[in-house]
Amino acid sequence: MLKLTQEGCRLRREQLITAAGVDLLVINNPRHIFYLTGMFSTQLLLSAWGPLALLIDARTGKSTLIAHDAIQSQTPEADVDEVVIWPWYNSAQAAGPGGDLFGDGLKALNANLPDLSGKRVGVEMGWLPFGTPISNPVDLNPVLANLRRHKHPDELALIREALAVTEAGHRAVRQTIRPGVTEMDVFNAIQSALNDALGHAVHVIGDFVSGERAQLVGGFATTRVLQPNEIMIVDLFPIVNGYRSDFTATVPVSESVTPEQARLDTALNAAMRAAEGLLKPGVVAGEVYRAVKRTLAEHGFDRYFRHHAGHGLGLDHPEAPYFVPDSHEILVEGDVVTVEPGGYGPGFAGRIENNYLITADGFERLTNHQTTLY
Amino acid sequence: MLKLTQEGCRLRREQLITAAGVDLLVINNPRHIFYLTGMFSTQLLLSAWGPLALLIDARTGKSTLIAHDAIQSQTPEADVDEVVIWPWYNSAQAAGPGGDLFGDGLKALNANLPDLSGKRVGVEMGWLPFGTPISNPVDLNPVLANLRRHKHPDELALIREALAVTEAGHRAVRQTIRPGVTEMDVFNAIQSALNDALGHAVHVIGDFVSGERAQLVGGFATTRVLQPNEIMIVDLFPIVNGYRSDFTATVPVSESVTPEQARLDTALNAAMRAAEGLLKPGVVAGEVYRAVKRTLAEHGFDRYFRHHAGHGLGLDHPEAPYFVPDSHEILVEGDVVTVEPGGYGPGFAGRIENNYLITADGFERLTNHQTTLY
Repeated sequence: MLKLTQEGCRLRREQLITAAGVDLLVINNPRHIFYLTGMFSTQLLLSAWGPLALLIDARTGKSTLIAHDAIQSQTPEADVDEVVIWPWYNSAQAAGPGGDLFGDGLKALNANLPDLSGKRVGVEMGWLPFGTPISNPVDLNPVLANLRRHKHPDELALIREALAVTEAGHRAVRQTIRPGVTEMDVFNAIQSALNDALGHAVHVIGDFVSGERAQLVGGFATTRVLQPNEIMIVDLFPIVNGYRSDFTATVPVSESVTPEQARLDTALNAAMRAAEGLLKPGVVAGEVYRAVKRTLAEHGFDRYFRHHAGHGLGLDHPEAPYFVPDSHEILVEGDVVTVEPGGYGPGFAGRIENNYLITADGFERLTNHQTTLY
Repeated sequence: MLKLTQEGCRLRREQLITAAGVDLLVINNPRHIFYLTGMFSTQLLLSAWGPLALLIDARTGKSTLIAHDAIQSQTPEADVDEVVIWPWYNSAQAAGPGGDLFGDGLKALNANLPDLSGKRVGVEMGWLPFGTPISNPVDLNPVLANLRRHKHPDELALIREALAVTEAGHRAVRQTIRPGVTEMDVFNAIQSALNDALGHAVHVIGDFVSGERAQLVGGFATTRVLQPNEIMIVDLFPIVNGYRSDFTATVPVSESVTPEQARLDTALNAAMRAAEGLLKPGVVAGEVYRAVKRTLAEHGFDRYFRHHAGHGLGLDHPEAPYFVPDSHEILVEGDVVTVEPGGYGPGFAGRIENNYLITADGFERLTNHQTTLY
């Protein structure tokens, strides 16, 4: 299984220490503990529910992970100097009943905090629990949000894995879709394709809407039976080993669609190319939205475009930068973004979406699925 | 889609107010916000990541849900007197870039707290974030843990739905398993069966270990090819609409197994019956463990039994009561529990598991899948 590297985790901790300018860092968001140590604790795993804490001493660089015993078997994945395990519940040892998971997690954090006198402490506001002796902390959220935009090579490797696995899902759509099958049949084929491609269970989140349901923009698969001349919007955004992919196709059910649907297909692909013309460091994110909107207007579809034109992607979905009209965020090298023009109107509905890496002088398209109808 | 009822949510809020004895309750654990309002915010849904808060005024009973705009479309599910939406990110309005999700969530909580002077405030220790004006709160964790053991009718309806959907998964195992298929093939059949049974995507967590891998007790499906005379342990514990089921079968790959495996099958089913003899209010949970262990000893398998004998089930898995040697917890009416004898040794491995509701004078078995090999 692909993982974040020790080198990558250490570099991110160093960058965080440098940017934060504090003496001690206390990290509680499991996404950031993964980002900084490589231990992926998804809430899709039974053992991973519960409080975690990562302490980083800025002077020595020493990192300490504080975790309960139910997740102990996973802690060797963490690149840290010390792991402290506290007892919650160990089904294998069957030693005693489970305690107060979150209350005891707070006590374990407090028991492992160093002397705070004279120290400046950085925390994630909204994540640090009430009840520690920490007062007047420095908020690390802005620093972390900025660091996360500059994707490291090991992060990109995980994103590329997520993309490859997700492309298997899009291929399964093309192989499965036909009149008479249900949205759920298509979904089940996608789900199996992702599991097979990764060799592990993937929880597939996404939009699976066909026919008139495609007007909803998104929604989960139902037992609706696909009809000839219809389309199905398939937007896949699984979490694969901690990182996200997020890309969309509008797929015809049979060998023809309505003329409006075909014109939308042309407009969406033109809008995608227009956005691509702007994908490089220094561009204001709002401009990407406007390029999509303007191109859809040239094809008469702008008033049917009723959502963002894309967003950043990585540990979360969505995350900065955001392709919306009022975004003044500036694209930087290392951003991973999606662009997703769409249109939803009388007799037609569709959305296409690609993922891109912003490079020093432009972009690399990360997705290779078919974005045209035929 | 089955949901918690308004009546049930109100009764649970009243019971919590009575048991807590405070003036204001601040709830941050999304499991408990679901329990008390009916709004299920799974982290499997994109929009549900982020901070939520529920305020309950103990004197008037007034409840206020504080949520970000990305989850706004789900808030009508919440039985509360007031919903306060704060702006994080709205992809449909594409109004502006996303803010600091967790930091802004803390600000939104603070902006909506009433005057706290002279008030006793109940909070979940470990969940309330640092940075509110709350001081010296009362810890609600023990009160909530106790309330949760007495399952209400609407909770039981959701648990029964989870059980029915999971039984479809176990039927799919029996239909799919044969020499030459892989563990992943069986898993994909289970996954599709649960999706079809619920009519919605279910994330299937569980154990899928065959042949020599069954010695691991648990683990995810691999591409291992099933061989004649082997068994596969299938333990399914999905989250279905917020509640858990958790039951296991050991399924033969072909029409015969080793003699040791057959003897284990007899022992496991005898241990299950012995545990059932103790399932009623007033029994000490540790006794259930000992009944399982003693029966396995009578069949010569006790030294191969290396985990708990079961645990409570509901919003979480595991939760109280715990069937372990040192548990002094007393069974109460309304407990939902699993019993899961197992054995893992040379030439054999297996586990079976049923779920039970503790009733006024005994138990109701909630699971109907096949626990014998043949």
